[in-house]
Amino acid sequence: MNPLLLHADHVLTMNAKRTVIADGAVLVGADGRIAAVGSAAALLNDNPGVEVKRLAHRLLMPGLVNTHAHSGMLRGTAEGLPVWDWLQQYIDPMHRVLRPDEAEMASRLCYAEALLSGTTTIVDMWRHMEGSARAARDLGIRAVLVPYVAEHPDHDYFETLDTNEDLIRKWHNGADGRIQVWVGMEHMFYATPDAWKRAAEISQRYGVGFHTHSNESRFDVEETQRRYNLRPIEALQKFGLLDAPKVLLAHCVWLSDAEIDILARRGIGVAHNPVSNMKLASGAAPVEALLAAGVAVGLGTDGEKENNNLDMFDEMKTASLLAKFSKLDAAALDAWSVCDMATAGGARALGMGSEIGSVEPGKQADLIAVRTNTPRMTPLLGGPQGNLHHNLVHAVQGGDVDMTMVAGRILVQGGQLVSGDLQALIGDVNTAVPGLFSRRKAWLDAKGGSKNALQRDGV
Amino acid sequence: MNPLLLHADHVLTMNAKRTVIADGAVLVGADGRIAAVGSAAALLNDNPGVEVKRLAHRLLMPGLVNTHAHSGMLRGTAEGLPVWDWLQQYIDPMHRVLRPDEAEMASRLCYAEALLSGTTTIVDMWRHMEGSARAARDLGIRAVLVPYVAEHPDHDYFETLDTNEDLIRKWHNGADGRIQVWVGMEHMFYATPDAWKRAAEISQRYGVGFHTHSNESRFDVEETQRRYNLRPIEALQKFGLLDAPKVLLAHCVWLSDAEIDILARRGIGVAHNPVSNMKLASGAAPVEALLAAGVAVGLGTDGEKENNNLDMFDEMKTASLLAKFSKLDAAALDAWSVCDMATAGGARALGMGSEIGSVEPGKQADLIAVRTNTPRMTPLLGGPQGNLHHNLVHAVQGGDVDMTMVAGRILVQGGQLVSGDLQALIGDVNTAVPGLFSRRKAWLDAKGGSKNALQRDGV
Repeated sequence: MNPLLLHADHVLTMNAKRTVIADGAVLVGADGRIAAVGSAAALLNDNPGVEVKRLAHRLLMPGLVNTHAHSGMLRGTAEGLPVWDWLQQYIDPMHRVLRPDEAEMASRLCYAEALLSGTTTIVDMWRHMEGSARAARDLGIRAVLVPYVAEHPDHDYFETLDTNEDLIRKWHNGADGRIQVWVGMEHMFYATPDAWKRAAEISQRYGVGFHTHSNESRFDVEETQRRYNLRPIEALQKFGLLDAPKVLLAHCVWLSDAEIDILARRGIGVAHNPVSNMKLASGAAPVEALLAAGVAVGLGTDGEKENNNLDMFDEMKTASLLAKFSKLDAAALDAWSVCDMATAGGARALGMGSEIGSVEPGKQADLIAVRTNTPRMTPLLGGPQGNLHHNLVHAVQGGDVDMTMVAGRILVQGGQLVSGDLQALIGDVNTAVPGLFSRRKAWLDAKGGSKNALQRDGV
Repeated sequence: MNPLLLHADHVLTMNAKRTVIADGAVLVGADGRIAAVGSAAALLNDNPGVEVKRLAHRLLMPGLVNTHAHSGMLRGTAEGLPVWDWLQQYIDPMHRVLRPDEAEMASRLCYAEALLSGTTTIVDMWRHMEGSARAARDLGIRAVLVPYVAEHPDHDYFETLDTNEDLIRKWHNGADGRIQVWVGMEHMFYATPDAWKRAAEISQRYGVGFHTHSNESRFDVEETQRRYNLRPIEALQKFGLLDAPKVLLAHCVWLSDAEIDILARRGIGVAHNPVSNMKLASGAAPVEALLAAGVAVGLGTDGEKENNNLDMFDEMKTASLLAKFSKLDAAALDAWSVCDMATAGGARALGMGSEIGSVEPGKQADLIAVRTNTPRMTPLLGGPQGNLHHNLVHAVQGGDVDMTMVAGRILVQGGQLVSGDLQALIGDVNTAVPGLFSRRKAWLDAKGGSKNALQRDGV
């Protein structure tokens, strides 16, 4: 790849000073990393002969980091139930009949959707993830793959620590380093004490992160207390699940002060999923308290079945709205904090803060260009009284993304996917879904329902 | 205009039965009204020689009805304050210096934004609204214009009942009937008892509606109780402001059961603004209780300064999320109810249910085509287990609108505005805003702040 100079009307760096450069430029090196950031005049002068891509009426900014998502193809078909009932009625039975080829096509469409709406890094918890790895490799997105692992007699239809370890061996640091594989676990309840120990041990052995859901609903907390007389974060700590080199917990809605303290002391990252938390009636995470305690908080869309899209701009707006509404404080969670969670904060939550999340020399050239010649970006004011960050959080939507670049490679151009055939991906999913649903129905008809550990007295 | 046959993959009628027609068609008559709705096969057979517009990979549905908005150009510049403080610091001073030419360019850009995101009818409360009327005439949107009237010594910088009456005379039923002019009032607190009586009298004399803000924040309720020993809806009723032929109240967040009963008995329409209510930390309106009581509830975006976009799809999603979160009930406010509020319910809230809001013969051909070959619409399942309404509420966004038609005239085509020059409108606003802000700053510097009746002991 040749060096490329991106010249945009505005460059939003999301560095520690939140520098915004009017008429700015970014030099992308042959290694796919950012070589320089500055005024267009200076960079054009310093780099004669380098190809220039003029992004007129565009804001160039870091690609968005989606810290919690699930590939899937159940959009709009699993509605109106709280999280645990919903799992048993719609989601668990789907997992029981899901085929690898279906899982792969779901990942392909989800990564395409993510790229088209400005996400450059996605944490995906999903099934049969060799297909997800191929999807990430081919489409060009940066991905942290964390299989939905269960190790429990009632959940013998998920991934296992064996398949997770196999995926680490085959794909961790794959696709020129764009793919990481972590140890995943659907939920602490979905595994036995032996499996908890082994999950932490695998994370340590391979030097990879660990990701699971925690403290999502009141039920989650109450059931953990009933089983172990501990709150969930305390239980995760006691059972060794926070001993991985890097831990990222999704949701963290219902937290005690003591749990926030554990998260802060141990450097645990949190994936905040405001749309999912509202839609499944889970609750409102104490985001400002987490940030005040120094916890790295990122944003996550959760899956197409919980949200029902993978648009991080949607998530940014909802994060702001939920914080303001849940505290009845219109000043809660300012727009800069939200922009940070979607970019640099998300990167820190993944332990990838030195590689991605801001437009700074040495970091990966994971960049997006957002259209500014739209009503949603008008007026657009620079300077200290500028409104660029407010427009990004409360007005812009994923469809306003014009260009998406990962590791220096342009994957979306003019709002169109260039690294894959979007219409073919859509067609594949629409063709596959009726078969998946009919197998799910057949399974449910035969078995009468998907029972799991939640109907049992502890593990 | 010649008759036109629109042939789409799906027609979502939003009629009382919520009929969805696969491979459906709508015949638009020469009068700009819907002449027939049915299967494409039947309508093509019955109408030989009529021009056919094939909307492949498109869902055809009623245009969205935005029941409460404000033109404006303060997007992202008035952030982080609760509603009453925010009014005094940012909004009132803007009103004091706003010029008619600026007000008109704000309306032009806002109506363009609305059309581009699928809104075909907008209720606009704004200033210097002859310019808004010209904007609606030229851009082709259907508009209910309601001036921001104040009749109070502390608010002598708004529109007046005189200018409102003048606008009714000049523009009510203008632009081939697309423009209605109602009597507006910023808030009951912004007018004297004499003005309340006169507002109702003007509404009755011209047979037009009345629109104001009510019960938006707790302060609103508490201050009304302090002044009059009545809750706001009771006060509006006592003061004669519910005596207009049609009344539409925006927000209605904090309502007692007795107030809901008044709204139901008197056929008052409610404009629900979930994004604004969350962003300004106003609260959550009791939407399900209102619907259960038989109140016609529509959705409104509020203004660019409260939201910060005019995307009714965004509003639909937030309406669903807020209902679910605020009751911690994932089954609250089902997707069909949300679709209804955005279309037929909104039309009923405006007293326009016989003219707009659904795809039925005899109604205005106010229609939009939404792209279905997108990740956000995939999978797309028809039939009784279909997910079309779920996708519309929780996944689709305004940018997915491909075509917008009002009264049979195509205003947006291929996602591009065809009834105006969008880039010129954006340029006008960006050019005007610095001047508006510098005059607002000069006014504030000279006067020291914008005090109003809220610092006084009643009126």
